Amino acid sequence: MIDNQRLAAALRSFAAERDWDQFHTPKNLATSISVEASELLELFLWSRGQKGWEEIATTPIRTKVEDELADILLALIRFADKAEIDLQSVAEIKLAANARKYPAEKFRGSDRKYDE
Amino acid sequence: MIDNQRLAAALRSFAAERDWDQFHTPKNLATSISVEASELLELFLWSRGQKGWEEIATTPIRTKVEDELADILLALIRFADKAEIDLQSVAEIKLAANARKYPAEKFRGSDRKYDE
Amino acid sequence: MIDNQRLAAALRSFAAERDWDQFHTPKNLATSISVEASELLELFLWSRGQKGWEEIATTPIRTKVEDELADILLALIRFADKAEIDLQSVAEIKLAANARKYPAEKFRGSDRKYDE
Amino acid sequence: MIDNQRLAAALRSFAAERDWDQFHTPKNLATSISVEASELLELFLWSRGQKGWEEIATTPIRTKVEDELADILLALIRFADKAEIDLQSVAEIKLAANARKYPAEKFRGSDRKYDE
Repeated sequence: MIDNQRLAAALRSFAAERDWDQFHTPKNLATSISVEASELLELFLWSRGQKGWEEIATTPIRTKVEDELADILLALIRFADKAEIDLQSVAEIKLAANARKYPAEKFRGSDRKYDE
Repeated sequence: MIDNQRLAAALRSFAAERDWDQFHTPKNLATSISVEASELLELFLWSRGQKGWEEIATTPIRTKVEDELADILLALIRFADKAEIDLQSVAEIKLAANARKYPAEKFRGSDRKYDE
Repeated sequence: MIDNQRLAAALRSFAAERDWDQFHTPKNLATSISVEASELLELFLWSRGQKGWEEIATTPIRTKVEDELADILLALIRFADKAEIDLQSVAEIKLAANARKYPAEKFRGSDRKYDE
Repeated sequence: MIDNQRLAAALRSFAAERDWDQFHTPKNLATSISVEASELLELFLWSRGQKGWEEIATTPIRTKVEDELADILLALIRFADKAEIDLQSVAEIKLAANARKYPAEKFRGSDRKYDE
């Protein structure tokens, strides 16, 4: 479980205590998510696909990965809180839409979705 | 609450049914999070900061925002699942680190953090 | 003038001397452009649109901006060189396409293009 | 050669005719470069490194790649023009800095630069 209410409340207090709410516009928080996501991606910048899940199980890269995932999640929860969007609910809707969009029998083993 | 175990399990089945697990390398999933985050950002591309939270409360932009937030969350949960990282736990650790890094009394009302 | 032939040749020698050509796949160079672009964006992360061109005319931010612009340009030139794409030519084609897509009389003073 | 003066002048007229200069703040143009770079990256999203330069030599992906490279270059030139930064000059400086930072004899054949 991700207790996003609890995390959102903590982020709300954090911003209030520093008077940072003024900076938390939709565009700025969207920029923040994007910049944090790019920092995660940078950890794999020159990898030619050879870096697998077992290789990121060990430090120091694991610590960096955890750090970036946390940044992305917190920025995402802050955005959703300000926008009053229920993340679980929109994720469920998207899962159902994806199942309709990519029928298993049609897309099995194919990367057509990806590269078409 | 975000039931990330449930969402991760659904994503696991989704990938297995389509034999897409082979595409879900660390680099590819990191790319996916970044590309989805950029699609959210694109909704605010030319906004000069004038677009506030009340303006994204209405459709059609709200639907687009929800859609992109869902994509980001699902890609993030899929990455964390493959990497066996507990998102709630790393988020809590990060919150505590941020509180130490930006003492309220020192950073109040200031955007120094942001721009230096 | 940007002497992209000269810069591309320098980048070719640079990669050859270090045996780095193997890392310069389409995906990796595209990732590189994106990551560098995000580093430029990060310089303006929390700005509420109040940061204008005069403010980035002064150091230290100017030096950082120059550094990131250089990184983006070099990655872009390296990609185009490997792909054998003439940047001037595709830019001219795009300019003409944009002029047709956004007729001045229809889009004047409007940010409709941007936010629709 | 990239005639960036000519392209910058065309972009200046283009913005003036539509009264779009008001949208071209540092942050917005940086966002624009980043979003365009992400659209290039998206073309290689699920590729496992197997997509090589010969594969992007053919349409339709070549046309898309050309289109995205053009968008990135134009946004970059527009930013540099507004900031009064000489792209050729900063690129030369960066090339020299990279040569010092990554001595060939030390980094040959190694992806150490990339992954640590």
